[in-house]
Amino acid sequence: MNYLKKVVLVSFCAFFSLSLMAQTHPSIMLTKANVAAVKKGVNTYPLLRQSYQAVKNAADKALAQPIVVPVPKDGGGGYTHEQHKKNYSNMLNCGVAYQISGEKKYADYVKNVMLNYASQYEKWPLHPKRKSEEDGGRIFWQSLNDFVWQLYTIQAYDLVYDGIPATDRKTIEEKLFVPILKFFTEDRYDVFNKIHNHGTWNLAAVGITGYVLNKREYVEMAIKGSKKDGKTGYLAQIDQLFSPDGYYMEGPYYQRYALLPFVLFAKAINNYEPSRKIFEYRDKLLSKAIHTSLQTSYTDKTFFPLNDAIKDKTYESVELVYGVDLAYADIKAEVDLLDIARQQNRVIVSDAGLKVAADLAAGKAVPFKYQTLWIRDGGKGDEGGLGILRNGPNTDQQCVVLKAASQGMGHGHFDRLNLLFYDNTTEIFPDYGAARFLNIDTKNGGGYLPENNTWAKQTVAHNALVVDQTSHFNAKLGPADKASPTLLYFSNQPNLKVVSAKEDKAYTDVTMLRTSALVKVEGLDKPLLIDVMQAQSAKSHQYDLPFWYKGQLVNTSFPVTAKANQLTALGDKNGYQHIWLNASNPLEGKSGMVGLLNKNRFYTTHFVSDNPLEVKLLSIGANDPEMNLVDGKAFMLSSSGQNQTFVSITETHGGTDPINETVSSALPTVSGLKLIKSDAQQTIISFKVNERTYTYQINYTEKQNYISLR
Amino acid sequence: MNYLKKVVLVSFCAFFSLSLMAQTHPSIMLTKANVAAVKKGVNTYPLLRQSYQAVKNAADKALAQPIVVPVPKDGGGGYTHEQHKKNYSNMLNCGVAYQISGEKKYADYVKNVMLNYASQYEKWPLHPKRKSEEDGGRIFWQSLNDFVWQLYTIQAYDLVYDGIPATDRKTIEEKLFVPILKFFTEDRYDVFNKIHNHGTWNLAAVGITGYVLNKREYVEMAIKGSKKDGKTGYLAQIDQLFSPDGYYMEGPYYQRYALLPFVLFAKAINNYEPSRKIFEYRDKLLSKAIHTSLQTSYTDKTFFPLNDAIKDKTYESVELVYGVDLAYADIKAEVDLLDIARQQNRVIVSDAGLKVAADLAAGKAVPFKYQTLWIRDGGKGDEGGLGILRNGPNTDQQCVVLKAASQGMGHGHFDRLNLLFYDNTTEIFPDYGAARFLNIDTKNGGGYLPENNTWAKQTVAHNALVVDQTSHFNAKLGPADKASPTLLYFSNQPNLKVVSAKEDKAYTDVTMLRTSALVKVEGLDKPLLIDVMQAQSAKSHQYDLPFWYKGQLVNTSFPVTAKANQLTALGDKNGYQHIWLNASNPLEGKSGMVGLLNKNRFYTTHFVSDNPLEVKLLSIGANDPEMNLVDGKAFMLSSSGQNQTFVSITETHGGTDPINETVSSALPTVSGLKLIKSDAQQTIISFKVNERTYTYQINYTEKQNYISLR
Repeated sequence: MNYLKKVVLVSFCAFFSLSLMAQTHPSIMLTKANVAAVKKGVNTYPLLRQSYQAVKNAADKALAQPIVVPVPKDGGGGYTHEQHKKNYSNMLNCGVAYQISGEKKYADYVKNVMLNYASQYEKWPLHPKRKSEEDGGRIFWQSLNDFVWQLYTIQAYDLVYDGIPATDRKTIEEKLFVPILKFFTEDRYDVFNKIHNHGTWNLAAVGITGYVLNKREYVEMAIKGSKKDGKTGYLAQIDQLFSPDGYYMEGPYYQRYALLPFVLFAKAINNYEPSRKIFEYRDKLLSKAIHTSLQTSYTDKTFFPLNDAIKDKTYESVELVYGVDLAYADIKAEVDLLDIARQQNRVIVSDAGLKVAADLAAGKAVPFKYQTLWIRDGGKGDEGGLGILRNGPNTDQQCVVLKAASQGMGHGHFDRLNLLFYDNTTEIFPDYGAARFLNIDTKNGGGYLPENNTWAKQTVAHNALVVDQTSHFNAKLGPADKASPTLLYFSNQPNLKVVSAKEDKAYTDVTMLRTSALVKVEGLDKPLLIDVMQAQSAKSHQYDLPFWYKGQLVNTSFPVTAKANQLTALGDKNGYQHIWLNASNPLEGKSGMVGLLNKNRFYTTHFVSDNPLEVKLLSIGANDPEMNLVDGKAFMLSSSGQNQTFVSITETHGGTDPINETVSSALPTVSGLKLIKSDAQQTIISFKVNERTYTYQINYTEKQNYISLR
Repeated sequence: MNYLKKVVLVSFCAFFSLSLMAQTHPSIMLTKANVAAVKKGVNTYPLLRQSYQAVKNAADKALAQPIVVPVPKDGGGGYTHEQHKKNYSNMLNCGVAYQISGEKKYADYVKNVMLNYASQYEKWPLHPKRKSEEDGGRIFWQSLNDFVWQLYTIQAYDLVYDGIPATDRKTIEEKLFVPILKFFTEDRYDVFNKIHNHGTWNLAAVGITGYVLNKREYVEMAIKGSKKDGKTGYLAQIDQLFSPDGYYMEGPYYQRYALLPFVLFAKAINNYEPSRKIFEYRDKLLSKAIHTSLQTSYTDKTFFPLNDAIKDKTYESVELVYGVDLAYADIKAEVDLLDIARQQNRVIVSDAGLKVAADLAAGKAVPFKYQTLWIRDGGKGDEGGLGILRNGPNTDQQCVVLKAASQGMGHGHFDRLNLLFYDNTTEIFPDYGAARFLNIDTKNGGGYLPENNTWAKQTVAHNALVVDQTSHFNAKLGPADKASPTLLYFSNQPNLKVVSAKEDKAYTDVTMLRTSALVKVEGLDKPLLIDVMQAQSAKSHQYDLPFWYKGQLVNTSFPVTAKANQLTALGDKNGYQHIWLNASNPLEGKSGMVGLLNKNRFYTTHFVSDNPLEVKLLSIGANDPEMNLVDGKAFMLSSSGQNQTFVSITETHGGTDPINETVSSALPTVSGLKLIKSDAQQTIISFKVNERTYTYQINYTEKQNYISLR
């Protein structure tokens, strides 16, 4: 405790002195005044020790190899691309190793790499693999990667500043950083001033470079835009890219990515100019953004893969390590963040990492508090949002996500009122995410694949309603960006968690309402997922509601007769051309069920419709000449009529124990699902559990009495 | 140490006294003389403590629920099936809890369940869901489950014997166990005397019941067969079902299953009649069988899924917990077995479990010694075998399995010279295993599915050579059971691990030779899998060599043009009817490569042929009306001619780090693979690694100089 007090005191003095004498180095994540404390912490706190050990190992590995700064040539995942990425990591690792170990060899390495870049940079034209003149980089195929490179590199420079002779610093600054500042702010003027994550990376790199080189005019431009009028720049980005709840409109995958330049620049601003109170800006927006990023993950650590998202991305990602460390150390020490830090299993070797590691070692962590919540989207919070319903402990949590957010620009998918369902630390009804093999050069240079547009963005690739086999907004970004769903109701009670939203612009003459709920019923271990998708129209339409699922089909209420010798594509456009129709089962009544086995647990979806119903069994893969798509399966409820309501109850039950070869509750308990009424005022259904009949009623027009279960 | 000495001394006295006064209870896994020591061990050794806690929790849970002994009605996985299984588990758990806690309530529970069975058993006819009159059970649909039930139940009876009044014992013995003995040995006479795992379960149940009830004539029959002539019975089963290396001809999945009655009965024999020296029998065969069972697993704990096998079965299975505990405590205390016990994370609460838990607590465990070895098959060891090549530590091991074993009776697959490949704790080239959802009643009653015969057993479902689209032996069990492959060569050197085998009976006029090797080459992190499949024939044939793979196709040397709007089945019989042809790519030359990404690591298979080559990309699922098959993908090398050699080099390289979004060594290093010569004497190939050319030569007729790499 005394020790910690001292740390705090020293930090305080450091910040104080910084504001007077700003050109101390280092002064971003690791500050000069705290180096001694961090050094001591490395020997004291396990997580800081192993985090530093990893940094030092990487630094030593870098030192053992020759310095290679190749002329830029390859696209994402290719040799020169990966080598330039490696260089900035190496420089940053060596910078940290220099500060903690005090060994000059690390500073020398950084100096030599930078001098090498300085000797070449000005000769490099725009990258030969650039996709356009507007966003090509010089080191990488897109300027975005150049911004990232600089954001890391300038930190390394700050860390070794005192270990490099002044003449070399002059060369590096004049031949590398100044030309980079010029390239970023002039040649990439439009990107610098764009309200978009590429812009954030650009201005954060420029701003931090401005602080480190003491060129405050660049800081000013970064914060307030090239014209210094505040219409663009960092503050405008905070204002416009995030909702009041800290949600980033592109979705969780890009939110995570966008976060790093936001928090790093904030940290630099706070160190250099604490009077700006940047962490307080817009009602502590940055703190909310970090928390919201974590809340948009499931307990398997992955982010909800909404919009263009690489599916195995988790909060172990370095951006969230920065985010969590800074949120805890610099904004508010909420002890459930320590749980995330523990799962991340590393901290940034820095002032913030010291505090996190110390508090973790002191046993302060509690399980991360995943919440049931409605996260607003849009700069003003009025462009829809994400509904997240959760039940159960982090070790075995059910989670439902209703995507009722805005389009989120070019990386957005046409999936209004898309539903995701998780249980047992795995996906049950997943989202496909993006069609992309990140950094794998043999797959379209590691970029988005053609199937990202023809499949992944299309409505049918999601657990969303498709009308007449066309995608929402005809898959046109313009109109989609202009409209967003409306929240009708949100409730978080222990036994009834509900989100209900409306989308009436995705199709010209169809209004869609989706009401999803986790409902606890006596006699069942797990809540039921009750999902009511209602479409209202004056005209007759074909309605398809797919449930993309993981696991194996093990039960159906109807006889399945899958196609035997030949499969054909389900359609010829709007994503349907990528689907194989495995089986088509018209139901005798208007109800049925499908049973799945997933990770040794059973899931039975009971469904009922007000029009005659057909169940189609589908798999992904048609019209995929280069076999770019990954596997996936769905059951799709199909019907036609004017108004159409699909009701489903997904029951989680029993399981198999393959080690002991036992099975429990293989058959569902829910029975007799009936749709009693569904119109613009109400949907009423009934079902039985253990001989008791329940009536579940939605009153669309009564906010005070929206849902009841009797 | 003193304490352990005492335990040993006490045990020794116990065994000695047992042989004079055999009717002490309990006297199977837990013996009366050792109860005090085990009680103390429960309080001392963590693994024994948690193992007992699990048993006691299960026992307490049983006590909290009403006793239910339903009239047998349902098939595998159904209600009465699972309830009767639960009953024997409950009885055994309560038996153990009674001995360790001394609390009479546990004995009362067992007594009451047994009295309930005793009041009904004789009224039960053959099970209504039986599939035949010959092997139907009375409690379960097949008598096998009845044998298992009795093997557990008689142990429970032994454990609570002293806690049940003599009159109740009389009822239980006369109304339950005696009728059971009669049913097993008379009504199921053929099964009792069959050399087959069902027979083993039957006779072990009978033999142990004979000991516990002191009806030694049943013991005698169990050991030497109904006629007591030794032609059938336990010893004959040990002689004939296992090879001299302890391999069980049905394969690892059934070896694991068969093991339990073998070792349990051995333990009983050893306790009651140590003079039989049963553990020494046939050069310590039972010990070999346990070790071989473990050696036929991969480092992900699963057994090689050869023949009919449920794929998620691991050595955590209770049979191997018994096996490992007894092997360590009663046969030979090899400390690497403790590593397995640690992974199993439980011991049997017993004399043996005490010793294992004590030695684990003493820190004696070392990593399990996975070996590169040739395991002989056949009672005399002359019916082929399994070749297993391994490289690397248990944490990241490469493993190659060449299946050159005998057919293995009815559960055998027609997959001579089938190749399995593992790396990075996952499957790379997997085996499908069985087509079965064990215990899931909605899938054919939990039994083998029709597709087990039409798909899983067929040659093309394996990584094995198919000639003229027909399966080995035309998928006829009779001829297949009569022939087995021949080992040509086996070698285990640090840089060159090789197995080579021949099969010349699977097709009338084709001789197949397969030589698979793990070859370490300078400059590569991981060994190369070099696989040479040679077919010799006087006539022209079509040859298909599939490589079923896990992961995603990310690279090919040829342009892939997958079927767009329509898929058709690859054939109409012999398993081909279950395959969709996704793409068909005739190669310009006779060589090419396919690159996969699996669990963030790259695998590139380079291949070359002496005849023109076509690469077909396949997936599983055609002609599967009830959608019983699970997903799978393959690339298949197809060619035709008289003699045909397929050479492949599978290179393990680089990987992706999705958290840090980096990629390393995405492209392969091997290049220029050439087939220089292949005939009955030799196969010679060459390839380049980092500009150095290697020549790999197989001399089929020279045992002393079989393989060379230069």
